[in-house]
Amino acid sequence: MKLLEERILKDGMVLGEDILKADNFLNHQIDPVLMQAMGNEFASYFANKGITKILTIETSGIAPAVFAGLELGIPVIFARKHKSLTLIDNLYTTNVHSFTKGVTNKIAVSRNFLDATDHVLIIDDFLANGQAAKGLIEICRQAKASLAGIGIVIEKSFQPGRKDLEELGFDILSLARIRAFEKGVVKFVKEEEKK
Amino acid sequence: MKLLEERILKDGMVLGEDILKADNFLNHQIDPVLMQAMGNEFASYFANKGITKILTIETSGIAPAVFAGLELGIPVIFARKHKSLTLIDNLYTTNVHSFTKGVTNKIAVSRNFLDATDHVLIIDDFLANGQAAKGLIEICRQAKASLAGIGIVIEKSFQPGRKDLEELGFDILSLARIRAFEKGVVKFVKEEEKK
Repeated sequence: MKLLEERILKDGMVLGEDILKADNFLNHQIDPVLMQAMGNEFASYFANKGITKILTIETSGIAPAVFAGLELGIPVIFARKHKSLTLIDNLYTTNVHSFTKGVTNKIAVSRNFLDATDHVLIIDDFLANGQAAKGLIEICRQAKASLAGIGIVIEKSFQPGRKDLEELGFDILSLARIRAFEKGVVKFVKEEEKK
Repeated sequence: MKLLEERILKDGMVLGEDILKADNFLNHQIDPVLMQAMGNEFASYFANKGITKILTIETSGIAPAVFAGLELGIPVIFARKHKSLTLIDNLYTTNVHSFTKGVTNKIAVSRNFLDATDHVLIIDDFLANGQAAKGLIEICRQAKASLAGIGIVIEKSFQPGRKDLEELGFDILSLARIRAFEKGVVKFVKEEEKK
């Protein structure tokens, strides 16, 4: 997605070997116009697949997910990373390790909102090692819900997440695919390298 | 806001004396159509006030805030509740106590995204004791940003948050104002009771 790639080049900050900071438009400050464009892109790619729910994880997946949900006419569920006193019992849960943050979080989704009748689109902000996506897939497995595909805002294609998920047979749309950080500059996967 | 009041009556769950669970449409599962309507309501009320940024707090304020931001043509910043490794240093911080969850969180906003040139609209999901709003006001004070007002999705008018904030001189728009829970049923503030 050209608009997103341009924004990453303009406002993304490369930290060290493998971290892209997108705090200017996605992970801390949010650009609503860009979020709407991204949501529409997800909705367009995954249209007419009978999707009933979008599943994301707090926090940064929510903005693109709600715009996709608006366009597809379906609700969005966000998995919670911490149990809160007003979200008790009756949960699907699994553990998700974040290499970036160096922590393992329990994530939870209420059984009230996901079941065997659902056909789910997973949306998340980053795909690196695929831990968050695999956690959300595990939540769908527990719910016996089927999976329509996975929508990712920024994929770090040099990390194993995409390959692992493709091997599991999932349809993945990543709006920006990063091939490498070369001397602190973001290089995207070229069109001819995409399958 | 009639649409929201109807949704609260249909899908909100009263727990005990003073908790309303809005997990069906706001706090866990999100209804994008309702979020857009609420965002537009905030944008309409706070239009033409020279607002430059919306400030909310993760997680449930984000969805209504991005729709308001889209309509007003301005960015949204969400305060983070936990420091992440990709959001280092250079922060405005303060503590926010949640009576519902029984915890105190440090909240943080990067100094990169808020300064003395900003005129801020605060948006949050609930107003009860006003702790989260006061935390966001403190962040604006540290940034020397001015405040245009406060937009709240659901206000529990029987708790002191609104009164405290009004006494500080802030303009508050709450889309639903709850007067009481009577035998587990939500009762809204009547039109003639509103100032």
